[in-house]
Amino acid sequence: LDEAAMGQVQERLDSLTKPQGSLGQLEQIAKQLGGIQGTSNPQIKKKAVLLMAGDHGIAAEGVSAFPQEVTPQMVYNIMNDGAAINVLARQANADVFCTDVGVAFPIEATGNIIQKRVANGTKNMAKGPAMSRQEALQALLAGAEVAQEKIQAGYNLFATGDLGIGNTTPSSAIVSLFTNSPLEDVVGRGTGIDDAGLINKRQAIQKAIDVNQPNTEDALDVLCKVGGLEIAAIAGSILQAAASRVPIVVDGFISTAGALVAANLAPKSTAFMIPSHGSVEPGHCKALAGLGLEPVLNLNMRLGEGTGAALTFHLVEAALHILNEMSTFADAGVSEKS
Amino acid sequence: LDEAAMGQVQERLDSLTKPQGSLGQLEQIAKQLGGIQGTSNPQIKKKAVLLMAGDHGIAAEGVSAFPQEVTPQMVYNIMNDGAAINVLARQANADVFCTDVGVAFPIEATGNIIQKRVANGTKNMAKGPAMSRQEALQALLAGAEVAQEKIQAGYNLFATGDLGIGNTTPSSAIVSLFTNSPLEDVVGRGTGIDDAGLINKRQAIQKAIDVNQPNTEDALDVLCKVGGLEIAAIAGSILQAAASRVPIVVDGFISTAGALVAANLAPKSTAFMIPSHGSVEPGHCKALAGLGLEPVLNLNMRLGEGTGAALTFHLVEAALHILNEMSTFADAGVSEKS
Repeated sequence: LDEAAMGQVQERLDSLTKPQGSLGQLEQIAKQLGGIQGTSNPQIKKKAVLLMAGDHGIAAEGVSAFPQEVTPQMVYNIMNDGAAINVLARQANADVFCTDVGVAFPIEATGNIIQKRVANGTKNMAKGPAMSRQEALQALLAGAEVAQEKIQAGYNLFATGDLGIGNTTPSSAIVSLFTNSPLEDVVGRGTGIDDAGLINKRQAIQKAIDVNQPNTEDALDVLCKVGGLEIAAIAGSILQAAASRVPIVVDGFISTAGALVAANLAPKSTAFMIPSHGSVEPGHCKALAGLGLEPVLNLNMRLGEGTGAALTFHLVEAALHILNEMSTFADAGVSEKS
Repeated sequence: LDEAAMGQVQERLDSLTKPQGSLGQLEQIAKQLGGIQGTSNPQIKKKAVLLMAGDHGIAAEGVSAFPQEVTPQMVYNIMNDGAAINVLARQANADVFCTDVGVAFPIEATGNIIQKRVANGTKNMAKGPAMSRQEALQALLAGAEVAQEKIQAGYNLFATGDLGIGNTTPSSAIVSLFTNSPLEDVVGRGTGIDDAGLINKRQAIQKAIDVNQPNTEDALDVLCKVGGLEIAAIAGSILQAAASRVPIVVDGFISTAGALVAANLAPKSTAFMIPSHGSVEPGHCKALAGLGLEPVLNLNMRLGEGTGAALTFHLVEAALHILNEMSTFADAGVSEKS
């Protein structure tokens, strides 16, 4: 990040009519955006939610409360503007783009649906690798391509988003491995499984780890063995955003698993991440801590789709409004700290 | 609250294309608004921040990092649209009204400044009561009157806000008394005092409590002995909002002290309060817990003015957008939980 620009932003923030530092994370976000854009006057032009959709072979183990057909059904729901993310993105004046990187059913890509399918879902990771190393790389690149296309179209603030029945399962595996946390601490109820379902889910993940023996020193190995196509694409979109110096708001548990993959591939990418909400999924706080991020929203949400990140757009814009529109002590004739 | 309307809102929320309950606090807010407005289709028309300004005799004990002239200077800054609350309210499409209930210096009330002064600041509570019982009642009524006027003008969502050099000091006293917490746990650095200042502030509050012996069974006694005029007015605005069935977002530490006064005068008023952020002030979480509220924003802010509450307006509106704009499982042809 551009330290000089960040210093200028800090100076400006400290000249505004408020106790120094009293706007907390809003001030940090303003500084981060200054550092990313390399200017004391960072601006948001266009905002997009980059939603990645994929299916999971592990769904065959009964790890989710919903059937797998819901993935394509929700893709169409997003196309028709009926999902939660459509509503929240519209409120934030942001566009939603949903990329099929690996749905298990045919999808007709029209409207805001982008077709970059790598495979018809992952394989059952409880029995072998979820995908090949090649497929994981392709899905990473698909996410990066979408980000690149949208940057060229003028977007300069992104949110990550995920869609895929069963995807808290690979995310839990990834978070457990990268944060070195026991499965008991990171496996949750996803869309809403019961106690027996939770035990079954934990066992399926343990099996996947035992069978595949992912090497945590090699993020791609973890990703292809116990990850997901949409998780790979999320990691790719984050890496491309970072490479192009565009800030990206990281949504909930699945997105944060993707962010952990990105951070393990390119540690400097964390500087371009903006945290959003703290999910109900028990592993989310561990995953965020692993990235050095702290959630700014505390809404007990567990929906994914980028919903927490879209809500955070308001806060990012608030940070810039503060920076650009508040009066200084000098202008307003207000006395400073004695 | 209207239980039937809340049931209808819950039914609608459960029919929307998302796992039940997965939007957490957004769903709770939608239900609360349905219960308050008595309809399955709650709507926000106009939003206002009701900022109350007052000075504090205890400032003479050196409890604040800023001189007392800053209170009127900030009132004018708010009038001239230069303060943080102006910026954040504008972003949220809300109006700011600042009421002088007890600034220690003359104020020319024009524009969005409302003149309802009860006294030229409180007296030094380390030496006797901050104000008379009569003055506390008058300030409560002043806050209620402003809320009533704005409700008549068509506003149906409020945020509380405070302005007053030294006002974390009486707020700490109030929170300590009503939550039965030791001063060590609830006294913080306000606008930014150092370690010695913190010890001095704690001692001044202890003195105020020792000298005045407030009776916690009598909320007005606490308010007049160790409170503030703007804290009284905040409590009054909350009570009027509740009486008129208008939801009110409670800002940070000072506002929550006012909310505790309101809740002790009329326990049912808590049903009309919407929590906002968790402040850096150490007593804030205790104060919120005393009201049964949990913060939805975690931004490490400590500015007051209603800034955290204004940011929360976006979330309240998000809750209603979700309720009114999302597709149902039936409409979107999405399969339900298996």
